[in-house]
Amino acid sequence: MPHRLKLTVAYDGAPFSGWQSQANHNGIQDHLERAFERIAGQKVRVHGSGRTDAGVHALAQCAHVDLATLKLRPARLVVALNALLPPTIRILRCGEVSGDFHARYSAKGKIYRYRIFRGPVLPPFEHGRAWHVMPSLDMALVQSAALLFVGKHDFAGFAANSGQFDTDTTRTLFAVRVRCGGPHVTIEFDGDGFLYKMVRLAVGAIVQCGLGKTSRKEISERLLVKKDHRPMRLVAPANGLFLVRVRY
Amino acid sequence: MPHRLKLTVAYDGAPFSGWQSQANHNGIQDHLERAFERIAGQKVRVHGSGRTDAGVHALAQCAHVDLATLKLRPARLVVALNALLPPTIRILRCGEVSGDFHARYSAKGKIYRYRIFRGPVLPPFEHGRAWHVMPSLDMALVQSAALLFVGKHDFAGFAANSGQFDTDTTRTLFAVRVRCGGPHVTIEFDGDGFLYKMVRLAVGAIVQCGLGKTSRKEISERLLVKKDHRPMRLVAPANGLFLVRVRY
Repeated sequence: MPHRLKLTVAYDGAPFSGWQSQANHNGIQDHLERAFERIAGQKVRVHGSGRTDAGVHALAQCAHVDLATLKLRPARLVVALNALLPPTIRILRCGEVSGDFHARYSAKGKIYRYRIFRGPVLPPFEHGRAWHVMPSLDMALVQSAALLFVGKHDFAGFAANSGQFDTDTTRTLFAVRVRCGGPHVTIEFDGDGFLYKMVRLAVGAIVQCGLGKTSRKEISERLLVKKDHRPMRLVAPANGLFLVRVRY
Repeated sequence: MPHRLKLTVAYDGAPFSGWQSQANHNGIQDHLERAFERIAGQKVRVHGSGRTDAGVHALAQCAHVDLATLKLRPARLVVALNALLPPTIRILRCGEVSGDFHARYSAKGKIYRYRIFRGPVLPPFEHGRAWHVMPSLDMALVQSAALLFVGKHDFAGFAANSGQFDTDTTRTLFAVRVRCGGPHVTIEFDGDGFLYKMVRLAVGAIVQCGLGKTSRKEISERLLVKKDHRPMRLVAPANGLFLVRVRY
């Protein structure tokens, strides 16, 4: 029986080509698989809870791997893997789980956070980690637009074509939390699942509402249509998005 | 009469070769001078409040420039300069000052902040922005070691040879503030002036004290010696250091 390990991984998405293995070998999955292969001496497949696009960050992405033998205790394995990984990918925790745990199929939900900076000048330390939006962003409008997304909706109007066939585009958002501290704004989405680019399309619409470029009514209507291919849909930039955690 | 402008500049030190102009043209000063020259159409010299080493960051470095003519209002100039600068250098403010203001000689003091992360794994977002220190760092020892630096001292024992001839190595620290929030530790130095590498040498000694590798007594003695060339002096890494502000 192989040993199944659950990994909790943080990464700064900026230097990588997204989570998934890429032809250029610069997916976060590629880096993790290379580090495991050097330690295990065998091909290792890393299964993530889901993909994140190029530039998207993770505070705690989850994944699982199967190892034929456990040469190192999990705590030692974390140290050994981190020594092989680039410093912008860190394994935070690693522990053995039962063989029926699956990073993707066992996930009950996820939390995503989107960071916005609304000030005249984007500080250098926010570069690549927040969306720079004009100071005129109205927080009362942002708050009320964000609340429209809470609950069970058909999010087809807020999804991009992932290349996969989504039979069911209904998802439930348990909460959408808007926080504002000076020029820093975060919008956190807590849901049972997310369609491709769903958070970035939702944030795009919320920000357009906060800038007076769209209305609550238009957002409500888009939450009712089965498909929405309006080319003017605004996708918030990848680099403001953080996968906060995966709930099992 | 030329127009003298005071600039407030923030930068992420990681991609640059320090503040000062370099042969590789990658000093922060080089980037600012190139941006000014493109706008002013003349050679412009940027005078900083002082140098920062490669990897050192600034939340609000100050500098001044002289422009023969002001073609743009200062607020417009900020927008024009930022459009030419890399996103990891940002001019925060710019305003006309009298001809007797000098970024370096008018400075009455500075605040530096040093960031430490004491946890088992350094988060990817702290890479290049904090010193990763073992979790065994004792905060009571750090606090009591930090207080030794407060006041007027001859800091020769906590200075590196800058290539300049320091006639007087006496400086006054008005306050040294230690803050701790979970694994995040900051040590802030508020003083009338700083010798070359003084903050990093002080933080090196404070951390060694917090790890039980040196004592308060040894630090006190080093604050009394006129010169200290012990090769074992620990210099804290540049990338945990932030110039917070310059006081005029």
